[in-house]
Amino acid sequence: MMFDYFTAGESHGPAVLAIIKDVPSGLSIRSEMINKELIRRQQGYGRGGRMEIEEDRVQIKSGVRHGLTLGSPITLIIKNKDWQNWQEIMAIEPDKKKAQSQQKNMTTPRPGHADLPGVLKYNFKDIRNVLERSSARETAARTAVGAVCKQFLKQFGYDIKSHVVQIGDVKTANYSDLDDDMDNYFKRVENSQLRCGDQKKEKKMRELIDRWRTKGDSVGGVIEILVFGVTVGLGSHIHWDEKLDAKLSRALMSIQAIKGIEFGAGFKMASLPGSKVQDKIYYQKEKTGGRFYRKTNRAGGFEGGITNGQPLIMRIVMKPIPTLKNPLHSVDLDNKKECFASKERADVCAVPAASIVGEGVVASILAKAFTDKFGGDSMKEITNNYEGYQRYIQNY
Amino acid sequence: MMFDYFTAGESHGPAVLAIIKDVPSGLSIRSEMINKELIRRQQGYGRGGRMEIEEDRVQIKSGVRHGLTLGSPITLIIKNKDWQNWQEIMAIEPDKKKAQSQQKNMTTPRPGHADLPGVLKYNFKDIRNVLERSSARETAARTAVGAVCKQFLKQFGYDIKSHVVQIGDVKTANYSDLDDDMDNYFKRVENSQLRCGDQKKEKKMRELIDRWRTKGDSVGGVIEILVFGVTVGLGSHIHWDEKLDAKLSRALMSIQAIKGIEFGAGFKMASLPGSKVQDKIYYQKEKTGGRFYRKTNRAGGFEGGITNGQPLIMRIVMKPIPTLKNPLHSVDLDNKKECFASKERADVCAVPAASIVGEGVVASILAKAFTDKFGGDSMKEITNNYEGYQRYIQNY
Amino acid sequence: MMFDYFTAGESHGPAVLAIIKDVPSGLSIRSEMINKELIRRQQGYGRGGRMEIEEDRVQIKSGVRHGLTLGSPITLIIKNKDWQNWQEIMAIEPDKKKAQSQQKNMTTPRPGHADLPGVLKYNFKDIRNVLERSSARETAARTAVGAVCKQFLKQFGYDIKSHVVQIGDVKTANYSDLDDDMDNYFKRVENSQLRCGDQKKEKKMRELIDRWRTKGDSVGGVIEILVFGVTVGLGSHIHWDEKLDAKLSRALMSIQAIKGIEFGAGFKMASLPGSKVQDKIYYQKEKTGGRFYRKTNRAGGFEGGITNGQPLIMRIVMKPIPTLKNPLHSVDLDNKKECFASKERADVCAVPAASIVGEGVVASILAKAFTDKFGGDSMKEITNNYEGYQRYIQNY
Amino acid sequence: MMFDYFTAGESHGPAVLAIIKDVPSGLSIRSEMINKELIRRQQGYGRGGRMEIEEDRVQIKSGVRHGLTLGSPITLIIKNKDWQNWQEIMAIEPDKKKAQSQQKNMTTPRPGHADLPGVLKYNFKDIRNVLERSSARETAARTAVGAVCKQFLKQFGYDIKSHVVQIGDVKTANYSDLDDDMDNYFKRVENSQLRCGDQKKEKKMRELIDRWRTKGDSVGGVIEILVFGVTVGLGSHIHWDEKLDAKLSRALMSIQAIKGIEFGAGFKMASLPGSKVQDKIYYQKEKTGGRFYRKTNRAGGFEGGITNGQPLIMRIVMKPIPTLKNPLHSVDLDNKKECFASKERADVCAVPAASIVGEGVVASILAKAFTDKFGGDSMKEITNNYEGYQRYIQNY
Repeated sequence: MMFDYFTAGESHGPAVLAIIKDVPSGLSIRSEMINKELIRRQQGYGRGGRMEIEEDRVQIKSGVRHGLTLGSPITLIIKNKDWQNWQEIMAIEPDKKKAQSQQKNMTTPRPGHADLPGVLKYNFKDIRNVLERSSARETAARTAVGAVCKQFLKQFGYDIKSHVVQIGDVKTANYSDLDDDMDNYFKRVENSQLRCGDQKKEKKMRELIDRWRTKGDSVGGVIEILVFGVTVGLGSHIHWDEKLDAKLSRALMSIQAIKGIEFGAGFKMASLPGSKVQDKIYYQKEKTGGRFYRKTNRAGGFEGGITNGQPLIMRIVMKPIPTLKNPLHSVDLDNKKECFASKERADVCAVPAASIVGEGVVASILAKAFTDKFGGDSMKEITNNYEGYQRYIQNY
Repeated sequence: MMFDYFTAGESHGPAVLAIIKDVPSGLSIRSEMINKELIRRQQGYGRGGRMEIEEDRVQIKSGVRHGLTLGSPITLIIKNKDWQNWQEIMAIEPDKKKAQSQQKNMTTPRPGHADLPGVLKYNFKDIRNVLERSSARETAARTAVGAVCKQFLKQFGYDIKSHVVQIGDVKTANYSDLDDDMDNYFKRVENSQLRCGDQKKEKKMRELIDRWRTKGDSVGGVIEILVFGVTVGLGSHIHWDEKLDAKLSRALMSIQAIKGIEFGAGFKMASLPGSKVQDKIYYQKEKTGGRFYRKTNRAGGFEGGITNGQPLIMRIVMKPIPTLKNPLHSVDLDNKKECFASKERADVCAVPAASIVGEGVVASILAKAFTDKFGGDSMKEITNNYEGYQRYIQNY
Repeated sequence: MMFDYFTAGESHGPAVLAIIKDVPSGLSIRSEMINKELIRRQQGYGRGGRMEIEEDRVQIKSGVRHGLTLGSPITLIIKNKDWQNWQEIMAIEPDKKKAQSQQKNMTTPRPGHADLPGVLKYNFKDIRNVLERSSARETAARTAVGAVCKQFLKQFGYDIKSHVVQIGDVKTANYSDLDDDMDNYFKRVENSQLRCGDQKKEKKMRELIDRWRTKGDSVGGVIEILVFGVTVGLGSHIHWDEKLDAKLSRALMSIQAIKGIEFGAGFKMASLPGSKVQDKIYYQKEKTGGRFYRKTNRAGGFEGGITNGQPLIMRIVMKPIPTLKNPLHSVDLDNKKECFASKERADVCAVPAASIVGEGVVASILAKAFTDKFGGDSMKEITNNYEGYQRYIQNY
Repeated sequence: MMFDYFTAGESHGPAVLAIIKDVPSGLSIRSEMINKELIRRQQGYGRGGRMEIEEDRVQIKSGVRHGLTLGSPITLIIKNKDWQNWQEIMAIEPDKKKAQSQQKNMTTPRPGHADLPGVLKYNFKDIRNVLERSSARETAARTAVGAVCKQFLKQFGYDIKSHVVQIGDVKTANYSDLDDDMDNYFKRVENSQLRCGDQKKEKKMRELIDRWRTKGDSVGGVIEILVFGVTVGLGSHIHWDEKLDAKLSRALMSIQAIKGIEFGAGFKMASLPGSKVQDKIYYQKEKTGGRFYRKTNRAGGFEGGITNGQPLIMRIVMKPIPTLKNPLHSVDLDNKKECFASKERADVCAVPAASIVGEGVVASILAKAFTDKFGGDSMKEITNNYEGYQRYIQNY
């Protein structure tokens, strides 16, 4: 189905890549659109050294001709610039000169990473065989996919935003509590190294990050993702696995280090009576020829697994990065003795990066839900189908 | 693939049902096992009148012979006892005597339900065409599926528990904070009408429910689901859509009225430094011949989307039921005028029921992940494969 | 996705059934439409005794209200009338009075059936545990699904036909060689007990069947399935698993006893030069406002895995039924000694029945391909999308 | 699931490529294994000029380290050496200097290709946007995937062979009719430019190809694919879409220009009585500790959609290549006037190439069916599971 995709590639292999299996024909795509998102992902206060090495740039290898999609799969390759230093350690072919036994294995698993369950599951003796793939470097590929999906959704007026609402114990207002001009607010977010729209709070967040960096520790946070301009009627109440909020949950929870998600008022809903939780229904005759609307949005844009035309509101929590400069207690795989976990170059805080990844992941799920609803093979056909539905909604 | 399933049936139609598409051959199944779970789901303080009508009982229509599975699909039918009163309103065939126009449509959508987005998406003028399927009655079918999956997992020592840790603003301790004998604790939970293991808190919860019932309002809560005895190595870090915690998120979020999920320490992780979040790795030589373990479980049993052998810990938030005795403001679909939402018979609090549904849903995802890993077509073959892996883990 | 379905049920269990997971809302469905197809499947010269017992009738248990689909899954149940005689042998629950060891197992596998590979795969000692599901009785459920899909396709002018073009060594003309009025021809087919449009040949076929019946043997044949009114542009050249002719091949080959399939000129194409195989392209301005067409149809309606607007032409070969009155050499599972295969009540020739099953199976794949292309949730939305595409094609 | 894959890339774009989504860890893979199959595909009497240009060589970009699989996706890239001459026509980014309108579109669709239905479906005005993807060059990617799958299956003793049994009207014996030493026979096949094991017939085939080449025409043929060493119990009788012969049909029919498939005795079964079609069951105590076997193999290795332990026998028909030096009548897309079809560089006969593609495609389906049955994540775990099953079969 449209916008199915998967990613490939090891963190220190030749490249990370993604293939989007099916896209409509006739969508305008440029490398620069994708690069823009890759750069957004690489910024952020609290990143380690690697970001400077990489400077990700995409190569489109299939599916686009003269800037327009062909309907055939789009291959997106992001070279790992560091590959030149890793060609021996990560060699594809076996080194004939060197016996494999001479290769130095990583044997000290890092708590909080896939290291230990990964080597057990796949029967490895070298943790590198797991961590090269479990690394959050893979999210560069997902961000590239997200850029294509955003470009698609943009044609239909969808606008995906994200901001950081918590770093460590420093919290800022959620979208629902903001009392601000949204355009200005999100301009500030884009200019903030922590994607935080509250400058005072951002300063405190930076200080907190600096504090943990000094201690060789790390810190997590909470991200809020918003989608404006969403069509009513994506997803379905009919099957458990077609509920769109459920699909978004899977996609967001699959981002490295994400441990929780909530929609709209989220966990706070447990404390409130039903009469204070549901979003009452109103109707407006003017302008568009008629449309139902709400004055509140505690549901976060979903009722019964279906979009209700309100903005989508999701919050995800990211745990602190498990790789620590000051490593944790572990056990050596070879001799089963106590040891300290391996160190890989790592960030103190990757929450702003995850915020961009989150946008991309949401875009990929929405692009798919959109084409599930509207069908069609070319941008022209999809647009016709979409516009027909919009007219129907206005005249319902 | 094994344990794929879906449900069918309308809330006031002849029956709700489920088909599990593939199961291993040779698994022992009895109707009474399934009925036991159906009864657990129907109990709970705060339920409305319908529960007394239904007394759900399953009929197995295929896939089982002399108490053993055949490998062919299992069909589970739960008759709607109320069907006799609804045969005309929910008739399958058109009523030749009565023009369809004479049928009285429901036209006042309930905020918080699929009613409004549903009728818009599917082009209906009668809300009943949506609510009959979006109703939480569908979870009876999922509970039946869950009972089969639990029976499968039980053969491999899996034990799924749930308890209610919050109703309204009354909270009890999470599993990680419990300082109690677990067997005793969960006996109390099973004997509690609110699935709460703290008797003092339970009393407060009841009072809170009574208070909201009097006001014609409703209340939600938080459920914690735990799984003990989980094999290390289910799920995978390799693809975003194979991470098992992500799959569980989708399944749990698809339960009616669930709006958030968190694993292990969940949203609290945002506030803690990395060194206080990751679960350090230890090793034990004795007994089993050797095994890695942890002294803490903030990760909730997952690292990199893979089970790490620790108990699974998940918490989900349920919003208050949107159908209120004291109905909310809405808009009539026909004339677009302001009105009050429709009333259907409803509960004040369905959190204990959702707790059982959650167990079943978790069982269905784990049974699938288990057979994804171990392959096999018969219980004997699966058991052999599983035991071989267990030996390998012990000798790693 | 729309029109995904699966079947369940054992041949002598309570019922065979099917669930169509997703259908558009607002499609008109009556039990009698489905029953009509079930009856067509049950007719045919060469059937054994069971057909008279069954007289299949469908019960719709979900997804339809007042004769219109709800978008929710449609459950179709066909009771096995013979069940009353099999309640003990096929009991769901274990018989407490009777030890299972007393149950008489079937241990003499029939060559040509799933009996032997089935018991080995699923670790059974009783062949009945396999044959109850591998039985062609399952095709009653697929025929019921096909009836729903045909009703959907009919709304867009699709017309699916089938006829028998070979029984044993008696062959009649394929569609491409017919020089006849098609309406008359297919009326004769529907009135023929062998679904053969050539009355002289049909007489020879009957004689051949009678001859083999006398000898306790069986006979197969070749069926041709045709679809008229197919939209250009279903399927896709882009991925191997989206080619529509390939999908049809899977579906048709999955019908019990089918061992080969060919499209258009099929295996004969090997002998012809390219210039005599491809269907030249022409254009017609008149009437529809312009359309491309062909004067020949050797491709059978597909180019590059995509429908080209010509009628679909498929032929499938059915092997003779493997259950013989005069049973074949086999080996007893228990003692590994030579024996004769088990006898189940069986037909001499089931080719006319398979012809109807083939129609249904083709309908299910086309209904799915149609909704893949046109999207939409309600019949109204799908119709709008379809009509927009038709206008585009005419003005290309 | 294991061995899911898809291909990407345009025929004259930078590369064709494939990603195998999941593979077991610990499988030994070298580029040279894959290159060997790519070379086999490129040979064959009757090929046009392009084959000399390409000399396909694979680059492995992910999923393999030091010659062993990591369990993560394997990316296989085959550069199009001709790309340097096509960089402008097939440019990814729009040419800023040149207006797109100046690009010369291909507007004369070739009968028998995806050209016409493709441009209509995807709303293109330039046929190149379709043919670049529908081209059989894509099968280089599938052959590379097949090489990996063959390497996997080889570990379990599977041996996949193919030969050409018909070119034009020149036929040789099918496997079942061969009275020869198989090792010698298939050595001759590998040394034959037409993959024909009968040297006299091969000479006639060459003459026939030369004749059609002179006339600017093309020719097809029939390929037989055989698999030895297949485990009993792959596939399933339980669901229509799990029958393994049906899955193979889809995969083989999806190869460019394939129009029919048959298993075992295939279409000839229509003419034979049941007693001459089914393969009687025998049992052998000696050697392996006991096994069921057959003296004939008319079923082609499948009963009820399940492998029965006999060799798989499949035949597919390839139509003559539709691109002719002497092009066919067509219609210009722009002005709708009569014209001759476009010419692309093409072969007279590609049957030997399709024979290798067929082997690869069969390998991909079997590798998947194998891991569906045996589960496991590493080669070691899969081997353990497989061996346990083999012991069980021997002691059944």
